[in-house]
Amino acid sequence: MKLEAFLNPSSVAVIGASREEKKVGHRILRNLINSGFKGSIYPVNPNADMILGYKCYKSVSEIEEDIDLAVVSVPANAVLGVVEECGRKRVKGVVVISAGFSETGREGLMLEKQLVSKCREYGMRLQGPNCLGLINSRIGLNASFAPTSPIPGNISIVSQSGALGSAILNWAGFNSMGLASFISVGNEADLTISDFLDAFIEDENTRVVGVYMEGVKNGEYFLEVAKRLSRKKPLVILKSGTTEIGIRAASSHTGSLAGSDVAFSAACKKTGALRVETMKEFFDLLFAFQDQPLPKGRNVLVITNGGGPGVLAADACEKLGLNLPLLERDLIEGLRKQFPPHASLGNPLDVLGDADENRYKIALESAFKSNVVDSIILILTPQAMTPSEEVARVIAETSKMVEKPILASFMGFDNDSTPIRILRAGRIPNYDFPESAALVLRRMYDYYLASSKADEPIATVTGVDNEAVVRIKSMAEAEGRVSLSQEEAFQIASAYGIPVPKSVLARSVREACEIAESIGYPVAVKVASPDILHKTDMGCVILNINSCEEVGRAYELVVNRARTLMPQARVSGAIVQKMVPSGREVIIGAVRDPQFGPLMMFGLGGIYVNFLRDVSYRLAPLTLADAMEMITETKAYALLKGVRGEPPADFRSLVDVMIRISQFMRHFKDVVEMEINPLMVYEEGKGCMAVDIKMTLAKHRTEEKEK
Amino acid sequence: MKLEAFLNPSSVAVIGASREEKKVGHRILRNLINSGFKGSIYPVNPNADMILGYKCYKSVSEIEEDIDLAVVSVPANAVLGVVEECGRKRVKGVVVISAGFSETGREGLMLEKQLVSKCREYGMRLQGPNCLGLINSRIGLNASFAPTSPIPGNISIVSQSGALGSAILNWAGFNSMGLASFISVGNEADLTISDFLDAFIEDENTRVVGVYMEGVKNGEYFLEVAKRLSRKKPLVILKSGTTEIGIRAASSHTGSLAGSDVAFSAACKKTGALRVETMKEFFDLLFAFQDQPLPKGRNVLVITNGGGPGVLAADACEKLGLNLPLLERDLIEGLRKQFPPHASLGNPLDVLGDADENRYKIALESAFKSNVVDSIILILTPQAMTPSEEVARVIAETSKMVEKPILASFMGFDNDSTPIRILRAGRIPNYDFPESAALVLRRMYDYYLASSKADEPIATVTGVDNEAVVRIKSMAEAEGRVSLSQEEAFQIASAYGIPVPKSVLARSVREACEIAESIGYPVAVKVASPDILHKTDMGCVILNINSCEEVGRAYELVVNRARTLMPQARVSGAIVQKMVPSGREVIIGAVRDPQFGPLMMFGLGGIYVNFLRDVSYRLAPLTLADAMEMITETKAYALLKGVRGEPPADFRSLVDVMIRISQFMRHFKDVVEMEINPLMVYEEGKGCMAVDIKMTLAKHRTEEKEK
Repeated sequence: MKLEAFLNPSSVAVIGASREEKKVGHRILRNLINSGFKGSIYPVNPNADMILGYKCYKSVSEIEEDIDLAVVSVPANAVLGVVEECGRKRVKGVVVISAGFSETGREGLMLEKQLVSKCREYGMRLQGPNCLGLINSRIGLNASFAPTSPIPGNISIVSQSGALGSAILNWAGFNSMGLASFISVGNEADLTISDFLDAFIEDENTRVVGVYMEGVKNGEYFLEVAKRLSRKKPLVILKSGTTEIGIRAASSHTGSLAGSDVAFSAACKKTGALRVETMKEFFDLLFAFQDQPLPKGRNVLVITNGGGPGVLAADACEKLGLNLPLLERDLIEGLRKQFPPHASLGNPLDVLGDADENRYKIALESAFKSNVVDSIILILTPQAMTPSEEVARVIAETSKMVEKPILASFMGFDNDSTPIRILRAGRIPNYDFPESAALVLRRMYDYYLASSKADEPIATVTGVDNEAVVRIKSMAEAEGRVSLSQEEAFQIASAYGIPVPKSVLARSVREACEIAESIGYPVAVKVASPDILHKTDMGCVILNINSCEEVGRAYELVVNRARTLMPQARVSGAIVQKMVPSGREVIIGAVRDPQFGPLMMFGLGGIYVNFLRDVSYRLAPLTLADAMEMITETKAYALLKGVRGEPPADFRSLVDVMIRISQFMRHFKDVVEMEINPLMVYEEGKGCMAVDIKMTLAKHRTEEKEK
Repeated sequence: MKLEAFLNPSSVAVIGASREEKKVGHRILRNLINSGFKGSIYPVNPNADMILGYKCYKSVSEIEEDIDLAVVSVPANAVLGVVEECGRKRVKGVVVISAGFSETGREGLMLEKQLVSKCREYGMRLQGPNCLGLINSRIGLNASFAPTSPIPGNISIVSQSGALGSAILNWAGFNSMGLASFISVGNEADLTISDFLDAFIEDENTRVVGVYMEGVKNGEYFLEVAKRLSRKKPLVILKSGTTEIGIRAASSHTGSLAGSDVAFSAACKKTGALRVETMKEFFDLLFAFQDQPLPKGRNVLVITNGGGPGVLAADACEKLGLNLPLLERDLIEGLRKQFPPHASLGNPLDVLGDADENRYKIALESAFKSNVVDSIILILTPQAMTPSEEVARVIAETSKMVEKPILASFMGFDNDSTPIRILRAGRIPNYDFPESAALVLRRMYDYYLASSKADEPIATVTGVDNEAVVRIKSMAEAEGRVSLSQEEAFQIASAYGIPVPKSVLARSVREACEIAESIGYPVAVKVASPDILHKTDMGCVILNINSCEEVGRAYELVVNRARTLMPQARVSGAIVQKMVPSGREVIIGAVRDPQFGPLMMFGLGGIYVNFLRDVSYRLAPLTLADAMEMITETKAYALLKGVRGEPPADFRSLVDVMIRISQFMRHFKDVVEMEINPLMVYEEGKGCMAVDIKMTLAKHRTEEKEK
């Protein structure tokens, strides 16, 4: 097992153990003793002889046995000394509970850096500081100061917030949710969320992992671990700091900068992790994943003893893209023989208000037999004659028969009531309201799709001229520019195989005309000068020229105008460029996220981008499927397929451009942003063409960035 | 009090009372006795002498006292006879519990009609059939067969589904939610949801009303009642049947056709009713409205003892359009003196993990004093030292000080735990998760806005020529057409003062040229014939003509082509029409909803309508505010304000067109649909112009529609 010292220690020292009941050091020790930890426990406190019946040591060095894990709860300014002693004693892992580090400001940050150095010096791993501790139910290890101990189970939780961590523990307790492990990572000075996720991959006791986080420490590592984990078990993530206020709030309280939320969502998509929006969704999902099999399709049978809740479930399913198919004809016939004549044998399948457990059982068995049903939502409303306990028992028993998920919605029952207890004992999750059950099924199906998807190769293209790109960029770099000119951007795009309008430099009127004749009309003529950025504003661009004669006049006009208006500008002639025929306008962009690398964007282009925000995102590198998904997720997809009888657009060529940009952004790490808007997409087989390209380089750094 | 016989009867007969405990008739009688009803109770059953200690009557006519309310639970085929006896006895109100009426099909429907006639004959009002009964806590009246009796409170519930009704009752019981009244309306053969809503308007015991419904019986009445009710108290509506599957499910189980969901949402907007999406939101809102004052603004202070949950609350508030302002400087200074030095005194206001009740109290008092705080979300996570009970007590006490809503989120507590009990006793709603509290505040604020909005007059326009419209329509009617031709639609729009391109009939080449010269180029020339519908397809439309000569040629071309291709068509010449300059394209439409009348639609126009679906809806008649809201709710609003430095569009003229269509649809009840797409909107002061108009009339009916 990875992180053995933390998740499976043989001996634990509690440094800062205290006799005072209100002190954190006392609570940790008491939790450790009460949770039934089988290994050795050593309280450390220079001012006590015995605490809670255990011999107390003046310092960790006094302990004779080897120590796997030290839990430190002393004032911040005493932590370094204590950890130094741990190092000398060859302790393997240290959990620093104490607060007063990077979360408090610059001084605390310095102290935290010293703490990390000290641990590295002795080869110790560090959890925290500023955390609640950790719990591993299997070995009865509760090395936290949480007020409650969870019951054992197969959910592992990692929380970046101690407060939310204790709320999760309490909530789990009241709802009889069993936990395998609980980790409060605190400031993540050394061990991060990703390290613990890594450890849970092979942990047999963990069937599903839930994470609360506000920001990511190392994006690439997180991507890699989350992907490996998601392949084996569901990873449910509640990330806050999704809005501006939230980000401000998050950074003020943990000192961690909540990263780009869009990039984080893209990271979840890439890895197969399930991002949830609310705490309710977080718990609802964990409850289902801990016990139920995955739905292998989107077909749900709703079984209900009341019309109203059935309709609510049906609405919720349809909104979420789940189907409610009818049962096979022979199954319906079978039901008709056993059900009252006025029963509605559709979907929802109404077992009627006077249904007993037997009618529920018959309905369930039909659902199991059916080849069109992938999962079941079973609703029970407590009507006058409803034998709720017996129905619960029937579900718990019959559910063992098959590998189809069943989610119950016994409505209006207390968590502690007998029917709900029976369901729980039968490992059937129950949801107060059918809408919640529908949402859970949808996310379970999402996970099924993500985890069963074959690993697609990263799409690559050839015919790219990296050297040309370096050459063009170096011009800008030499001049200290971070924004490339339109011409430079076009040249780079062209070197990367992205279609751009033909464009040739003319040095005379005659050359201009010859070029125009060869690339075909209509053309635009623009002055060529590295010093003139706003050519249009200066009247140095003439569009829509249709003859050699006009080209000549345009050439003279723009060159003379440039020389008159900016005598000092270098003018090398004029660029003759093919006018771009209009097509369906899309935008393709990429920005470099500091955590996750290039974030690709696709959407409806032209002037609509800003106000319609019809865009989708993925992290580079893209697979072909990624690129197609990006397109289909937007409403622009409908436009590209063709509205009002238009023929479909050239998807192949569009995807090719997306892949090229993905590859380009991966290769040139100093490009921080690029955007083609619009990219004109033509009919199938007719390609596409970039009309406008923006590209920004990173600021040139003369020295290495400070660590 | 309205519906006095139902909500405040002095004497109740239970017809079909039974000695068998499992029978519905037994349960009703028992509920009535056990709920402490002070009036007289008369069991009626020809085969029993005594039931539950009460003298039993052979028939209702044997009872000596006058009967206000009869609750009928006999087989469907015996109901008519029983109700006849009730009529003779001059019973005032009848609740028919029995099922087997319109919900079962054609025969049941006939029986239900007879039932209604019978009641009308004797002037009795009827609740049901096929319902759970009714409850009025104030007078201890439980005339239902629900398995639980609610505790008294100030929430009244009306449910169209009996099953959901019992789930609501159970849920209310387990969550200590007090009810004033509970009504299960069943098939609404006579009394509808609206009748009970009407009764609750003046009911002092009802502070908030919750409705579960699947369809509306009488749209206009509902609009009127819901509006009057919403002015006085919040009306929270959970309507299902919002999706196609849901609608199918709803009609299969109640026989009621779930109406247009979009129109229903528009009806809620018009009346100030709060439509909710899920049962959870339904209960969450009722809980808050029953006790808390309304927030008078969108500014929320989040008080928390844990960073993580504070961030979750902040995210949720921002997503919902609520603000998190900072406290005033002097209040922050005051807090700084009493809080630990590293406390973050922002918003969320972090009272820190070791906060005691006193620190919460100080924070709350600052929120009360502040002029920038309209409402408070108070979060508590159960950390090691947190005195949850004391904090609950402090909130309950201090909350009485001011008229600002406080919603608590004590996280990870059981509903039955002491802190939550204390909160409940102090009338502070508690939400498991802070996101729920934020959503509730948002909807409370929505209600505050809706209920405090001055009653705006319906916008009207003058200069409309109703007679001209009638004249133009009569042509189509005479020909049995329901679709108007483009010319007819343009003429009608023009008669209603909607700007349409100038368009004049020319009967000769010379006339065509003269017209073109007078209306100005460019123009289009289209053949004029009532018999040719698809002029463009037949090549009988020529666009973008710029000279008199071209106009002449176009005239000859289209007229000749029409005569050649359709020799039998009546051709009166050609229409010369001003070409419409391009502007920002919007769509304005209206369809006549069978329940709620004309439903107006506004959105982004042109080819984008279908795939972007950027549209908003309101029921006619519109106020000026309605029209402006319709615009601002769409993304088209950004386009109209001007993107990329464009000047703003002519909103005044756009609103004027919307008002005209609203008035038109109200006036001409035989127009079932009209749509302008696109309407070109020009710069401020430059008006707008309809490019394409579709208009559909109702099918001509020779006889009155069957009742």
